Amino acid sequence: MQGFLKTPLNPDTVSLCADPTAASYTDSSDDETSPREKTQVNSKGSSDFCVKNIKQAEFGRREIEIAEQDMSALISLRKRAQGEKPLAGAKVVGCTHITAQTAVLIETLVALGAQCRWTACNIYSTQNEVAAALAEIGVAVFAWKGESEDDFWWCIDRCVNTEGWQANMILDDGGDLTHWVYKKYPSVFKKVQGIVEESVTGVHRLYQLSKAGKLCVPAMNVNDSVTKQKFDNLYCCRESILDGLKRTTDVMFGGKQVVVCGYGEVGKGCCSALKALGAIVYTHTHTEHSRCFIFHSMDGFKVVKLNEVVRHMDMVITCTGNKNVVTREQLDRMKNGCIVCNMGHSNTEIDVASLRTPELTWERVRSQVDHIIWPDGKRVILLAEGRLLNLSCSTVPSFVLSITATTQALALIELYNAPEGRYRQDVYLLPKKMDEYVASLHLPNFDAHLTELSDEQAKYMGLNKNGPFKPNYYRYQHHSTQSE
Amino acid sequence: MQGFLKTPLNPDTVSLCADPTAASYTDSSDDETSPREKTQVNSKGSSDFCVKNIKQAEFGRREIEIAEQDMSALISLRKRAQGEKPLAGAKVVGCTHITAQTAVLIETLVALGAQCRWTACNIYSTQNEVAAALAEIGVAVFAWKGESEDDFWWCIDRCVNTEGWQANMILDDGGDLTHWVYKKYPSVFKKVQGIVEESVTGVHRLYQLSKAGKLCVPAMNVNDSVTKQKFDNLYCCRESILDGLKRTTDVMFGGKQVVVCGYGEVGKGCCSALKALGAIVYTHTHTEHSRCFIFHSMDGFKVVKLNEVVRHMDMVITCTGNKNVVTREQLDRMKNGCIVCNMGHSNTEIDVASLRTPELTWERVRSQVDHIIWPDGKRVILLAEGRLLNLSCSTVPSFVLSITATTQALALIELYNAPEGRYRQDVYLLPKKMDEYVASLHLPNFDAHLTELSDEQAKYMGLNKNGPFKPNYYRYQHHSTQSE
Amino acid sequence: MQGFLKTPLNPDTVSLCADPTAASYTDSSDDETSPREKTQVNSKGSSDFCVKNIKQAEFGRREIEIAEQDMSALISLRKRAQGEKPLAGAKVVGCTHITAQTAVLIETLVALGAQCRWTACNIYSTQNEVAAALAEIGVAVFAWKGESEDDFWWCIDRCVNTEGWQANMILDDGGDLTHWVYKKYPSVFKKVQGIVEESVTGVHRLYQLSKAGKLCVPAMNVNDSVTKQKFDNLYCCRESILDGLKRTTDVMFGGKQVVVCGYGEVGKGCCSALKALGAIVYTHTHTEHSRCFIFHSMDGFKVVKLNEVVRHMDMVITCTGNKNVVTREQLDRMKNGCIVCNMGHSNTEIDVASLRTPELTWERVRSQVDHIIWPDGKRVILLAEGRLLNLSCSTVPSFVLSITATTQALALIELYNAPEGRYRQDVYLLPKKMDEYVASLHLPNFDAHLTELSDEQAKYMGLNKNGPFKPNYYRYQHHSTQSE
Amino acid sequence: MQGFLKTPLNPDTVSLCADPTAASYTDSSDDETSPREKTQVNSKGSSDFCVKNIKQAEFGRREIEIAEQDMSALISLRKRAQGEKPLAGAKVVGCTHITAQTAVLIETLVALGAQCRWTACNIYSTQNEVAAALAEIGVAVFAWKGESEDDFWWCIDRCVNTEGWQANMILDDGGDLTHWVYKKYPSVFKKVQGIVEESVTGVHRLYQLSKAGKLCVPAMNVNDSVTKQKFDNLYCCRESILDGLKRTTDVMFGGKQVVVCGYGEVGKGCCSALKALGAIVYTHTHTEHSRCFIFHSMDGFKVVKLNEVVRHMDMVITCTGNKNVVTREQLDRMKNGCIVCNMGHSNTEIDVASLRTPELTWERVRSQVDHIIWPDGKRVILLAEGRLLNLSCSTVPSFVLSITATTQALALIELYNAPEGRYRQDVYLLPKKMDEYVASLHLPNFDAHLTELSDEQAKYMGLNKNGPFKPNYYRYQHHSTQSE
Repeated sequence: MQGFLKTPLNPDTVSLCADPTAASYTDSSDDETSPREKTQVNSKGSSDFCVKNIKQAEFGRREIEIAEQDMSALISLRKRAQGEKPLAGAKVVGCTHITAQTAVLIETLVALGAQCRWTACNIYSTQNEVAAALAEIGVAVFAWKGESEDDFWWCIDRCVNTEGWQANMILDDGGDLTHWVYKKYPSVFKKVQGIVEESVTGVHRLYQLSKAGKLCVPAMNVNDSVTKQKFDNLYCCRESILDGLKRTTDVMFGGKQVVVCGYGEVGKGCCSALKALGAIVYTHTHTEHSRCFIFHSMDGFKVVKLNEVVRHMDMVITCTGNKNVVTREQLDRMKNGCIVCNMGHSNTEIDVASLRTPELTWERVRSQVDHIIWPDGKRVILLAEGRLLNLSCSTVPSFVLSITATTQALALIELYNAPEGRYRQDVYLLPKKMDEYVASLHLPNFDAHLTELSDEQAKYMGLNKNGPFKPNYYRYQHHSTQSE
Repeated sequence: MQGFLKTPLNPDTVSLCADPTAASYTDSSDDETSPREKTQVNSKGSSDFCVKNIKQAEFGRREIEIAEQDMSALISLRKRAQGEKPLAGAKVVGCTHITAQTAVLIETLVALGAQCRWTACNIYSTQNEVAAALAEIGVAVFAWKGESEDDFWWCIDRCVNTEGWQANMILDDGGDLTHWVYKKYPSVFKKVQGIVEESVTGVHRLYQLSKAGKLCVPAMNVNDSVTKQKFDNLYCCRESILDGLKRTTDVMFGGKQVVVCGYGEVGKGCCSALKALGAIVYTHTHTEHSRCFIFHSMDGFKVVKLNEVVRHMDMVITCTGNKNVVTREQLDRMKNGCIVCNMGHSNTEIDVASLRTPELTWERVRSQVDHIIWPDGKRVILLAEGRLLNLSCSTVPSFVLSITATTQALALIELYNAPEGRYRQDVYLLPKKMDEYVASLHLPNFDAHLTELSDEQAKYMGLNKNGPFKPNYYRYQHHSTQSE
Repeated sequence: MQGFLKTPLNPDTVSLCADPTAASYTDSSDDETSPREKTQVNSKGSSDFCVKNIKQAEFGRREIEIAEQDMSALISLRKRAQGEKPLAGAKVVGCTHITAQTAVLIETLVALGAQCRWTACNIYSTQNEVAAALAEIGVAVFAWKGESEDDFWWCIDRCVNTEGWQANMILDDGGDLTHWVYKKYPSVFKKVQGIVEESVTGVHRLYQLSKAGKLCVPAMNVNDSVTKQKFDNLYCCRESILDGLKRTTDVMFGGKQVVVCGYGEVGKGCCSALKALGAIVYTHTHTEHSRCFIFHSMDGFKVVKLNEVVRHMDMVITCTGNKNVVTREQLDRMKNGCIVCNMGHSNTEIDVASLRTPELTWERVRSQVDHIIWPDGKRVILLAEGRLLNLSCSTVPSFVLSITATTQALALIELYNAPEGRYRQDVYLLPKKMDEYVASLHLPNFDAHLTELSDEQAKYMGLNKNGPFKPNYYRYQHHSTQSE
Repeated sequence: MQGFLKTPLNPDTVSLCADPTAASYTDSSDDETSPREKTQVNSKGSSDFCVKNIKQAEFGRREIEIAEQDMSALISLRKRAQGEKPLAGAKVVGCTHITAQTAVLIETLVALGAQCRWTACNIYSTQNEVAAALAEIGVAVFAWKGESEDDFWWCIDRCVNTEGWQANMILDDGGDLTHWVYKKYPSVFKKVQGIVEESVTGVHRLYQLSKAGKLCVPAMNVNDSVTKQKFDNLYCCRESILDGLKRTTDVMFGGKQVVVCGYGEVGKGCCSALKALGAIVYTHTHTEHSRCFIFHSMDGFKVVKLNEVVRHMDMVITCTGNKNVVTREQLDRMKNGCIVCNMGHSNTEIDVASLRTPELTWERVRSQVDHIIWPDGKRVILLAEGRLLNLSCSTVPSFVLSITATTQALALIELYNAPEGRYRQDVYLLPKKMDEYVASLHLPNFDAHLTELSDEQAKYMGLNKNGPFKPNYYRYQHHSTQSE
């Protein structure tokens, strides 16, 4: 079990809990009794759930309704596929953050015919009132904010291990649930029809399982779908770099000198947003990416060595995927008031460990904001202790979560309905056509008016005008755009 | 006294109090005793102040030190003019928001030789720990967070009415202090050497006084200095529109359709920031500004009638300076989820009053965020009840406050040192040269390297290379740039 | 007369002649006979004109028709005021560049009732076929491409000095015509009702005349109208910097390091265009403009000393209004292939004279493009010999000329119709309301939809909804926007 | 032979000839004798070439020297590999546009040890003076501007069919040379060691040959290398859309409404450039690219149906790769003065054929600019008759050509030096590492400072610090960046 220990605290997920500004409506005056020791019943008489306080259900319901407003793609999928019930018979066990947006996903799965049991992938991130609202409508939820590690595994187990109900689909974020089923309930695991996994970590675990020949179930890696990637990286980071910096430091961007280390999609997002707001932006590239530097340059960013510029910078941002990109030596040379933060996946891009030495004083000035003070009084402002800024210090827009949740729902439908033989015991990417469908479901959000190909054009391009989609609920796609 | 009633709640100032995200380090477990009923003594034995809790002084001191980092212009002015003490003999009574940034200003005035007594221009905006820190170093501060109206005037009076000390300079923000002195202590008022006023409202009051022939003191309107204006409007709003929207709604900007009503500096800032982050931005202009529309268009914004587009918009932002720019009829036609907010000076740009009718439900979903719900379930998201978004829902960067505070300090120095006859009993704008000096004091913030004119060039341009500045502390300007 | 010598070659105007790319349809096989020695008659039997070849009239007519397409504001003014004939009785003598766009202006004046006689303000810039087309419809035109200096003054004289016709209005560009009338025909000058002057040079001359008490006629400076200025500087230069550089050097902008010296409207235009296309842009500011540097910085441009960066730059662009901004020493330090050009009004911003030394070789590689070659083989690419790039190497869009021509037409109408006493013997700026009207006439070009003020709003703003315009042809303004 | 007929007129290449603005230094007074009938000898006594006029060699040499300035990557490759002579023994027969930039490539090949015979891939595009300069230094060039079709094939044949010299490498642009060798000299073809092909058309032909099992030689498709693609599409079009529109129409971009059809790299380039200069840009997407629309929207472009907006547009630009994207019906609905042009590869995106009907009048107003006039007088401005705007109406920057030429040179080196078995009889993409090397050779153009990985970082990323390159001339890469 040791192996699991770190997971609920893994960098992908844990920092969400510490979001200083996320709206949380949890009543802090709640009694301190552990939910495991309470007996609660919902209005229909069921007690097959374990949440903080079932009485918060109404408040949670409103939160869900508000989230629905930004997740019209899921609502639209719900409406299109409702008649057909493509998930009829599906028994989905899920382990994700439990937020209002997740609730919209779960309720969509239910509307499409699935039975769901759900638990949290993170011990801090559950919105208690949302869990209550789900429990109230009959979803078997086992989750609350502030679980102990023991609670965490107890909740997972309660989802899986229940009489007269055996999961045939898994929706996971981080791989803990999958691992638990694999280890503890191998007979259940063998009969699962499909696994949908959302996180880098979880996908990595699945590939390892597959490599070791132990994956007896088709799995879908939704982390790497193109639409989702573009949103998670370019579009989301373009906004969250600004948001994260503002909420933590109130810094003015105009006129600030900033160096962004790395120029993948995340780096591009950071560079373009900061430049647009009047910052003077430099980039830092490693020689191994010669092709990259030319794109930096053509986009108007001066490529510099961090060493050359570090003492003049007002902000240093990392997103290279490499380690120790910002070293102690460079931190030593920064000017007073320099802000240092990380937008990359790795926690080690900034050598934070090197700052934990006796001659430096750490002063926590706000949540997620530390001043590291040098003997001469110089302060470097370190955000989120070098962890991902955008998860720690900004919020993820509902719209981005909508892209993710819609992708997850379609992946479940695909795996559950795929004819024998389409998927084997391996890890798959979301089929491109479904990725396109995720996008098209978000069409109404944009007031975008697409044009249908003429027969002649379709022929010229070698395309089938009606697309390759078979199930009814896909066909609506063209219908809806025609009506505009 | 009736007349004063509205002032501490005036739109320029009151909304700061409700900032949901501003860092406030006030210990909420403080006892409930009114500061007026406590006896407190600072470490030097003085009790000529009234703050929430003198024991918070140390904490406040750190806040001030952090603020100093972004206000190097004031620190630099402090260093340059310290020897000369241009405010020696000045007895300044001040009435402003009491924040860490104000403290940097006050301590600069003290370093330049002034004696200061200070009170708050707003009943909610005082940072108690900062007030304590000022009291601890001997500034006579009378202010705390959550004053009653009676407290408000009592504090002002305690600043002015003290034995053996008579103010000869006034620094005001809103005009309440000025009015109090004018009304209650006319003999003091007559002997004041100068008034420096920061707010639109206060300036308006001064002009009225001047027009009525009752202004017996030269006053300086620092609200309209060019540098300050550009920062307060264009540069500050360019960032705060994004910040305000994010902190309240977590909305994603990319792909959103937005109409910005008005295209002065504020509107330009809003338009350019939103466009840069991928929003599709329209502008709305009145026929009376024909010249304006052509600039909107040339800047790449489609000029539309609000009526034509309102039902497709994701956000509607006002900054025209006019009233009822967004009417109830237009609010009725907005789509579900449309966000409506105001960046203009007036509170009446959005006809919020028209939304207070029985058929509409108001639901407060977060601080500063109301959902107005139509009978058919449509929700319009109204921010800050139509008050200024950037004061209500975002923070003002220290750098902008540094521009303002430096301007105030220079205005005080100018009025206090001006030779007889330079200023009469009128309202003046800050001399252009001093405005330039405010800018030049901020040079070090920017790592900007300016070039000196050659003799030949200066002659060609008809300029005096050494500038027209007389006092010593101005002369440093060239010195500092020469040394680069 | 000596004094005039330089004028037709003055920097404002002469360089137009050398435009290497402007479409010129003049038949180069034309005979070499001087127009002054030919006898030509138009189809109506008149010979009161002197142009290259009246037979080119039809070709010129098509050019005019094409120009009309981009000058709908003038056409619209023509239609609105045609009934009223506000220029009935006006006898306008004009001296401007004679291009298709000017022809649209002249024909508008005629449509409004004026009689016109016209000559060229520049010896090279006349489009012969356009002059022919004007002559054909009865305008007395005296101009051809490639006049001698003697021809130049002969043409001006023929415009003014004609039996039975005495000018009562002057439209000038450069001041030569005005000066000629003033000097040679003082009695005519005294009876002129108004002068409209377009150029910096001409306006300067008028102010000198006025200062000397010799201006006996009201004159209108249309050079400094706000709309015109914004177009001539910011909007026009934003495009012409790119166009001028491309046409001369085919340089790729992406990734190039550029320093722009000066940051007025012209500099802003240059900086923003180059930045948008991926150049890395620096600015250079003199200490005398401390306030300016802060705006450069806030707009995201690093302020540098030219000396610090000059050896790394790919392009150096001047627009300061000062002299010797780029010195020989800096030219010596530039790298091989550096492009140097001037967008400012003065010809002396780049010290071109210093490059005319024996050790440097000048090689003309294209029209307007010189390679200056250092002994070690280094080449610096100098454009237009340091004269205004945008006049020399790019074209001015018809739309910008439409703004200018409409401004000129309205200025003529205003001066000709103004009630006694409105204008005295002085130099005036175009009234703001007319400047607004110029803009509003261009409304249809933009598909811009303006919104009328409600009564309540007009009152709140203290404005008269119907505007202050009296003459009929102004009233159409509101009519047209109402109908949208 | 019929099959070849169309090739020299194929859309990829022919339009270059008509470039109205490209600098051509060909002396137009040259005698009219066909070069084939002249006997010319270069200064070394050789007459193995056929060019217009060998006496223009000196002028051509200067052109080449100027081009070298922007092609430092090739010069650098020349220097690095000169000692090693990786092309020693290579007998390269080439068929490309013959311009100064090509000459830099050819002379690089020669410097690396190759013997070259060269001809033109297009009957109009040869710069005669450059051909002369090449002939003068001993390259066997057969090409002149204005060849007949018979000349075209005669020149190709003269390159291939020469005594005592047999080509072992082919460098082709369009596939004509390859086809000629394949058809006419099959025995030569079989012994060729490699073919490098640059154009879409040529690559297509090679794939067909390969599919048919008739390709007995390894071929390299350099058209699809990543660096080249990004430059040819995104970066080049971002600039050439502006340049092409300006040079042909002098249109002002600010405030214009533009719809761009298609949003691949070309479309992105067009959209971002036009938006940056103040145009109001819409995009048009087909339903088949649902995923695309979401990226359009997130980048801030409103996605519209062309039908919905066409009558308000000032410009319509196509780059979809599809046909009849702009139909006659839509052209009928455009407003007067609308500019229509194509940036896509296909000539049929605009249905130009539909405009050749009796009721419409075509008027050629400039080279590459037609006014199509409707019976009611409406004019639509069609550029380059719907062919590629950027090839027809703007120039390609030397820098882009440098990327292409360097790619070609490396491909030749790779194919010529590859160990047995690395390449078989198939069409290959340029190896990624060589693509990176192309980029790295352009490093000095950018004043970009790259950072080397530390050993620790290289290990973390699983990379070999020294790269995988074996030949000496690659090793310089790191050397050069280290020295910065």
